[in-house]
Amino acid sequence: MSHQTAPVTLAKLQEPLRARLDRVQQELRRIVEADFGLIAEVNAHLFQMQGKMFRPTLLLLAEEATGGRDPRATMLGAVTELIHLATLVHDDSVDHSVLRRGMPTINSLFSHQVSVIMGDLLYSRALRTLVRIGDLKILGILTDVAGELAIGEMRQLLAHDPLSFSEEQYDLLIRAKTASLVSGACEIGALRAELEEREALRRFGQALGMAFQIVDDLLDYTEDPTVTGKPFGSDLREHKVTLPLIAALPRMADGERRAVSRLLHTAEPTDAQIAEVILAVGEAGGLEYARERALRLAQQADTELDLLPPSPARDALRESISYVVDRRS
Amino acid sequence: MSHQTAPVTLAKLQEPLRARLDRVQQELRRIVEADFGLIAEVNAHLFQMQGKMFRPTLLLLAEEATGGRDPRATMLGAVTELIHLATLVHDDSVDHSVLRRGMPTINSLFSHQVSVIMGDLLYSRALRTLVRIGDLKILGILTDVAGELAIGEMRQLLAHDPLSFSEEQYDLLIRAKTASLVSGACEIGALRAELEEREALRRFGQALGMAFQIVDDLLDYTEDPTVTGKPFGSDLREHKVTLPLIAALPRMADGERRAVSRLLHTAEPTDAQIAEVILAVGEAGGLEYARERALRLAQQADTELDLLPPSPARDALRESISYVVDRRS
Repeated sequence: MSHQTAPVTLAKLQEPLRARLDRVQQELRRIVEADFGLIAEVNAHLFQMQGKMFRPTLLLLAEEATGGRDPRATMLGAVTELIHLATLVHDDSVDHSVLRRGMPTINSLFSHQVSVIMGDLLYSRALRTLVRIGDLKILGILTDVAGELAIGEMRQLLAHDPLSFSEEQYDLLIRAKTASLVSGACEIGALRAELEEREALRRFGQALGMAFQIVDDLLDYTEDPTVTGKPFGSDLREHKVTLPLIAALPRMADGERRAVSRLLHTAEPTDAQIAEVILAVGEAGGLEYARERALRLAQQADTELDLLPPSPARDALRESISYVVDRRS
Repeated sequence: MSHQTAPVTLAKLQEPLRARLDRVQQELRRIVEADFGLIAEVNAHLFQMQGKMFRPTLLLLAEEATGGRDPRATMLGAVTELIHLATLVHDDSVDHSVLRRGMPTINSLFSHQVSVIMGDLLYSRALRTLVRIGDLKILGILTDVAGELAIGEMRQLLAHDPLSFSEEQYDLLIRAKTASLVSGACEIGALRAELEEREALRRFGQALGMAFQIVDDLLDYTEDPTVTGKPFGSDLREHKVTLPLIAALPRMADGERRAVSRLLHTAEPTDAQIAEVILAVGEAGGLEYARERALRLAQQADTELDLLPPSPARDALRESISYVVDRRS
């Protein structure tokens, strides 16, 4: 598996798609265009924050790898990214997050109100575009995904008590919150392919999306905030229980477990408290465990691709696995 | 016009539709059903709050008045009410409202987070149901409405300064926030009718929806909170500028205008401050002006119905105008 070799950057992965991704960007801007002052201001800020376009990238690669040449693909990529953006805007509002990708969030720069309404507006614009495309199958996939995203957010609210939040529940959470849309993007890209290939790409996206979220949760334990653009240990700070902690907890000493419990019951934990728990999670093997699971899911995603005919796009999908597993931010 | 005679209650209006409205309720419950604990809890509370089902009532009447007998009408009524519910949940969260119809709001009983996510979930369930019905025309109407609703909410955020918020902007606000969905419900009910009738019902809903919102805004100035289930003068308390104030302001004395400005710049105005402004708005003719506009819109709505053939359902639509204009809560 290529992800065991040199790290792949997303930029490199996107290089052959540059022209198509530019069109995705243009579509995106066109869909959200508004003459209403406040909305235009928020839009401008959203475009400055500029997403990584990971989901449209997968959609376009899935389409190319199944020989589809679906002329709707760039528009569908834009819609997929827009649904993702809408979710992020609500997510930041729900979490009261201040930074995203090193930039102020909509809720911090404007207000909580603006971010709730803006999320609704982005989502309705995405749906309206899908209605105009007029394919009920795509509408079905993406409205199901939207339901999953909301359920994932709801599950997230319950992910604060490691004693009652199991790995099984964590799995349900990351499937709904992250894997659903990644998987939907891959499936939609392959919509004009044989059912077998389409299903393989759906499962590929599911495994890749779960790996993506596990790595994201790992980065919160391991990475430098100047690289990730998020504050250090922010999940723990917000009392979010993720896989490293779930895995480490049963193997911790009593004193360490008490430190975890103290942190999760402190409204504003100190940096020292967070550093202590991060250390304890690492020593109890929580990071290794999570890394192992991410690698297993990556392997699973890789296997799904065997069903597709060899092509540069399939190679790129393989490289997207490496990117997910090796990324530093 | 019947609205100049005895007041019509919504209950009386809904009596002949009782069986169909019960089916709307059942569909609604089925659509939002969830096995996930927290979601089921929120659902239970939402059903206790029980909407007035005004939009499904209009949809069913529009359908009957155009002889449609569209078997999808009860399902579409449920979807329309669900979109309305989703908007209310986000609206209460944006406004930090504590009470709705005399009951605690989702944001006050659960949390701000739960209400943002729950609104998203309700909306995605509504859309998913529409996708299953599979009529792209309906999907088009309702995704356009959803966009309007969000834009209306955004306009609402700017409705805090009577010096810069004109009657024209107020019109745009109530069209987007309220009339869009009322009008959409009427149009969808008449979807299988001749284009001419369908258009007449769309315009009927537009005028009725605007009248509805103006009366709502008037009630905030005139009515007893034990009847409306909302705190006294809550719009002014939240610094929301509505038609009575917009109309009164140019006719106020300097001292009164200063009192308005003071109130709008006081974070937590006192009851006395609010009572003073309410009195001044009344004395400057603001209530009369708003009432006049609502009656003119009601007249307009009434005229649109002339195009339909006489029927009990058309009579009931006429009575719905009286209900809107004469209601006390």
